[in-house]
Amino acid sequence: MTDTSDRDTRHKARMERKKAVVDAAIAAATDTRGVLLVNTGNGKGKSSAAFGVLARAIGHGMKVGVVQFVKGRSDTGEEAFFRRQPEVEWHVMGDGFTWDTQDRSADIASARAGWEQARRFLADPAIGLVVFDELNIVLKYGYLEVAEVIADLQARPALQHVIVTGRGAPEALIEAADTVTDMGVVKHAFKAGIAAQAGLEF
Amino acid sequence: MTDTSDRDTRHKARMERKKAVVDAAIAAATDTRGVLLVNTGNGKGKSSAAFGVLARAIGHGMKVGVVQFVKGRSDTGEEAFFRRQPEVEWHVMGDGFTWDTQDRSADIASARAGWEQARRFLADPAIGLVVFDELNIVLKYGYLEVAEVIADLQARPALQHVIVTGRGAPEALIEAADTVTDMGVVKHAFKAGIAAQAGLEF
Repeated sequence: MTDTSDRDTRHKARMERKKAVVDAAIAAATDTRGVLLVNTGNGKGKSSAAFGVLARAIGHGMKVGVVQFVKGRSDTGEEAFFRRQPEVEWHVMGDGFTWDTQDRSADIASARAGWEQARRFLADPAIGLVVFDELNIVLKYGYLEVAEVIADLQARPALQHVIVTGRGAPEALIEAADTVTDMGVVKHAFKAGIAAQAGLEF
Repeated sequence: MTDTSDRDTRHKARMERKKAVVDAAIAAATDTRGVLLVNTGNGKGKSSAAFGVLARAIGHGMKVGVVQFVKGRSDTGEEAFFRRQPEVEWHVMGDGFTWDTQDRSADIASARAGWEQARRFLADPAIGLVVFDELNIVLKYGYLEVAEVIADLQARPALQHVIVTGRGAPEALIEAADTVTDMGVVKHAFKAGIAAQAGLEF
């Protein structure tokens, strides 16, 4: 037996064992229902991962809704792109970052208006996926009550998926979620002096 | 002064200080060029974050390219959706997960064919963003040489962005990258018995 074919044979045996483990895990996961995802942490990818799932859901023919909290700008690539898609309803409900507005009462009013729109999505079983972008920030600053938000999320249609993004997800929301990812910074171009660029960061 | 207005005043002062820090960081980051992003880790969001940035880039009028390594299925929502967009060139170059194919030589041939397509994107300055989905897996199994891949990445057009996804990014690729995010699992619905669902996981 040559070295190559020996290596191939060992590879095949290892992959057969791995396949058995993977297949068993898939067989055990049979429940199908709407899930609550939370993307948090300080790294890049929290909002973009939500927008990637949005694309995936539309690809399967689902109707989707987005509420952007905090962000006030309306020149982002994601908004321009997704507004072109007939399956998407998109709302920008923020006035900008809290350190730009410097106005707590106005921020609270915007958050409240955003949550009213969120509730309309959460009451509509025709919407298969909703994204609440930067909602964690609003909860962290106490602009909305965590308990109220969780109660509304739990009362949503059984098959509706929800993705919540933003740094500093509150512990109660993590408890209530099905899938939680912490996007950790290993390194970031911004810290090396590279500006936020159109198409990449907004 | 009422409690509320006192709180608002303290909030405003705190946010003024924060804005000064943020503005200084933004002023220091002036470099504009193509960046290399790596999304790795065991959590959900590596590929979907890349697809979200794809949407963002298209929204800014960029042409984009995708090579999917490993994945053999062609029924994903992301592929169906992005193939509709005239700005996107999409290639599925895998035969499925290594534990499904169980054929090392065939996997190497697929990886090699995938990298040939990758090089065509990396030679084309008209492509603003390229995504190499699951490339880390191919590198981890040694199906492509890390040094060769990095050399090709570094020779790309100056303004082209690249996103590489997959678990277990090799150390040399992390070294070469500008931004690296480790998507960590806090919890995952799959482990709680919820199946991978169309629109969410594929």
